Amino acid sequence: MSIETLQGLSLLGYDLAQAGAVSFQARNPATKLALPKHFYRASEADVNHAVLLAEAAAPQYAALGGVVHGAFLRGIAERLEAMVDELATVVPQETGLPEARVRGELGRTTGQLRMFAGVAEEGSWVDARLDSAQPDRQPQPRPALRSCLQPIGPVAVFAASNFPLAFSVAGGDTASALAAGCPVVVKAHPAHPMTSELVGRAVLAAAQVMDLLEGVFSLLFDEGIAVGQSLVKHPGIRAVGFTGSHRAGRALMDLAAARPLPIPVYAEMGSVNPVVALPRALAHCAELIADGLAASVALGNGQFCTSPGLLLAVEGEGYVRLRARLLGKLAMVPIVPMLTSRIATAFHDGIATMAQQAGVTQLLGTVFDEYQSGPVVLETDAQTVLAQPLLAREVFGPSVLLVRCASMAELLSTLRQLEGQLTVTLHAEPDELTDWPALPALLASKAGRLLFGGVPTGVEVCQAMVHGGPYPATSDGRSTSVGTAAIQRFARPVCYQNWPEMLLPPTLQQANPLSIWRMVDGQRQR
Amino acid sequence: MSIETLQGLSLLGYDLAQAGAVSFQARNPATKLALPKHFYRASEADVNHAVLLAEAAAPQYAALGGVVHGAFLRGIAERLEAMVDELATVVPQETGLPEARVRGELGRTTGQLRMFAGVAEEGSWVDARLDSAQPDRQPQPRPALRSCLQPIGPVAVFAASNFPLAFSVAGGDTASALAAGCPVVVKAHPAHPMTSELVGRAVLAAAQVMDLLEGVFSLLFDEGIAVGQSLVKHPGIRAVGFTGSHRAGRALMDLAAARPLPIPVYAEMGSVNPVVALPRALAHCAELIADGLAASVALGNGQFCTSPGLLLAVEGEGYVRLRARLLGKLAMVPIVPMLTSRIATAFHDGIATMAQQAGVTQLLGTVFDEYQSGPVVLETDAQTVLAQPLLAREVFGPSVLLVRCASMAELLSTLRQLEGQLTVTLHAEPDELTDWPALPALLASKAGRLLFGGVPTGVEVCQAMVHGGPYPATSDGRSTSVGTAAIQRFARPVCYQNWPEMLLPPTLQQANPLSIWRMVDGQRQR
Repeated sequence: MSIETLQGLSLLGYDLAQAGAVSFQARNPATKLALPKHFYRASEADVNHAVLLAEAAAPQYAALGGVVHGAFLRGIAERLEAMVDELATVVPQETGLPEARVRGELGRTTGQLRMFAGVAEEGSWVDARLDSAQPDRQPQPRPALRSCLQPIGPVAVFAASNFPLAFSVAGGDTASALAAGCPVVVKAHPAHPMTSELVGRAVLAAAQVMDLLEGVFSLLFDEGIAVGQSLVKHPGIRAVGFTGSHRAGRALMDLAAARPLPIPVYAEMGSVNPVVALPRALAHCAELIADGLAASVALGNGQFCTSPGLLLAVEGEGYVRLRARLLGKLAMVPIVPMLTSRIATAFHDGIATMAQQAGVTQLLGTVFDEYQSGPVVLETDAQTVLAQPLLAREVFGPSVLLVRCASMAELLSTLRQLEGQLTVTLHAEPDELTDWPALPALLASKAGRLLFGGVPTGVEVCQAMVHGGPYPATSDGRSTSVGTAAIQRFARPVCYQNWPEMLLPPTLQQANPLSIWRMVDGQRQR
Repeated sequence: MSIETLQGLSLLGYDLAQAGAVSFQARNPATKLALPKHFYRASEADVNHAVLLAEAAAPQYAALGGVVHGAFLRGIAERLEAMVDELATVVPQETGLPEARVRGELGRTTGQLRMFAGVAEEGSWVDARLDSAQPDRQPQPRPALRSCLQPIGPVAVFAASNFPLAFSVAGGDTASALAAGCPVVVKAHPAHPMTSELVGRAVLAAAQVMDLLEGVFSLLFDEGIAVGQSLVKHPGIRAVGFTGSHRAGRALMDLAAARPLPIPVYAEMGSVNPVVALPRALAHCAELIADGLAASVALGNGQFCTSPGLLLAVEGEGYVRLRARLLGKLAMVPIVPMLTSRIATAFHDGIATMAQQAGVTQLLGTVFDEYQSGPVVLETDAQTVLAQPLLAREVFGPSVLLVRCASMAELLSTLRQLEGQLTVTLHAEPDELTDWPALPALLASKAGRLLFGGVPTGVEVCQAMVHGGPYPATSDGRSTSVGTAAIQRFARPVCYQNWPEMLLPPTLQQANPLSIWRMVDGQRQR
């Protein structure tokens, strides 16, 4: 695979779509120039064809089992590693991200693929439960009942702009859906189509070498929203994975809920990731907190779902030190291109709107144009936020709103009013919380991940990660899009009653041929 | 608690609502007479009050932990058992169900309460995951991450008419939500308000003796839909449990999805529960299959979510024997009252609509009025069903549509077209399936529970039960409303990063004080 061979066409199973009438080009945010390659919008017929292929492939792909699903994911990871140099050339052109970030993100991506491969191969994630028959039970015999999770069917995945590899074509949603045994149809993000085609071809090459049925993976291009809407409305799609803006995520949720056959949408829509600094922690560590916050706000130019956009603290000497240190640090951050001009413009508009509100002061705002930005710091007081809750909504980019609270009571009121978040970070002396015993439960009611100290950026890929929180951070907060538990999004339980041993899936056969953990008559065993 | 003390008022925490302007009476389906007790519709203010109490109680109730939640459920079970004689008097008056059924259903109800108590007390259901810190990891240290499921918040439960105890005020939805640590606001079913008040008072008595915060449970009366709608739209409600008709369930799903903050709805909306008889099984066992089917159709006068309403078989001598035997058996079933006149009327209308379709013949239809019915048998061919898929929709009551297929190919086509189901029952010789290797996967794609032989009525309460299936059988098919896994519907994961040991919930503390099963650095251990 090389850059010269890119076709600019949607990948429908193992075939290419026809070039249509409408095409688009990505733009290099560093040079502001359009990139030469044209990408053609998928037609309605292309969407339909991709989904029908996925539906047809679904039963066979599901039946292959976790070991084969794992091998497929490992094959994708190997192929991506083999094209690291192409990716290190293409991704920066399309995103403005530095090459080192691209190489790092590729490692994260292949790491995720192999982690989900491991989960699929190990197999216990299916939550197998076996209850033995009790033929002599009175008044009625108990039948033999066995259940496990099974793939939900074809999944539509919407790629994100801010992780062109790790949350895109072969990112976490695709990897977890394929690991669960579901075919995937990806709607490529229009900001990095060359990257998307490269990665999509790697996925298909891995599928082809294993002779997987056509349709286990397809990739659709569109600069607008029509293809995505058709995809979510298609009766063959059984679940949706999405990472992006609140507006787009909610639109997909509404579309999915209005279908004749509603389907689950796992939309990760970002959040403002509040940082709460309690008074004693602030008094002791204002500079340390400020340094961490500055680095986290500036990281990746603020274009992470977990970028901290809100600081809550009680006013006083510690707060003043924190503010001074934060401003000093962020003033030194260079202006760099944002991922797309759309993101830069939305950031610009969002900041301007906030800064115009009565009671809000802009303390730092680096000059930026429709492609670039540096960090922004705004300040307000708790009463202003309490009166205008939308001030606490995310503005995607490197900004933070400092909220001065007159008292801990005001800080707690402001916290109570916050919407659902991906993360909340608490800076406190460990014994400081004895004064505020209800605070941990309040924080837990607001977010999927609670940090004690540190910064919210940096989402570890592991068993215990929760990258999801109460709406509007995610569509419903009962799931995570990062970490091993993400696989459970794409499955549903099926129970077999008095089913013949030879016809049961291997996960449920008496002899436990896969050696997975199971619940047998109420006991966990392997 | 005795019947004479019933007040007919909604229970708002530990208080009674005021009597409002609008009241209703239940009707005895056996005598067709209105019962004397008046029940008053809850006002908008009552709904709001109940939810605000539940919100206020939620953090404290959640923090009490599984042992206390379990004790609460056991207390409810004991109080229900203590009022068995009152219930055995009241429930038959409101439902027409025989006293023996009421006593049996009470046993199921208290069994469920104690089963969920056991799940809460044992505690491993929270899926605790601990990933250790790796301070020396390169390029960056790994933080300590720990996650577990936590209660989702106040749950609205809609009681069903067909299980006045087991799927009503203290039924499976209430029991599993309370076990998960969530306060519950029940919308009573208007067909059995006296039963609802008796049970609701038992729940509150159990709460009061434990000094639980007011609001952990409330009960609202309304003959219509206004109270239920207000409840689902109230911002304090975080999830909905429902058992009932497709129309009502879908309306609640749509309301919940359209909220500013959408919430999950777990709606169990019934299904037609197809029974598939393959040719050799039919040839060998037509009479056995017919006898089982007849008993299952007639059980509880067909008023079960799992009542079999559709038989698919290839025409021939075996099919003719089955039909004859089935008609003979069902012709002997007596006419009895249905649960409500509304159900009887809907059954009457649904059967009349089906029987009028070209290609459909009514083979058995016992005379019935607006309160009573006996079993109905209709017959058609596969082509008619393929042309009119709505024929395969549930008509709630004791009816079965026999679908004659010209061939196995036609039978499989008809199966493929079916909507999601709670159950599918397969009658086959074990080696008969070698001819149809794709059939088990096809069946699994259609239903939450697959039976080999037997009948779908009888939903075992156990670890492996799945009482839920693809839409429209349930709202989304990723969950079950019966069995231990039902508790997971009312929880969401929360992750703690570098959180101080003393501030972690006991489920996540290093020493594992609750001795629950956990995933520690990828290994399951207790």
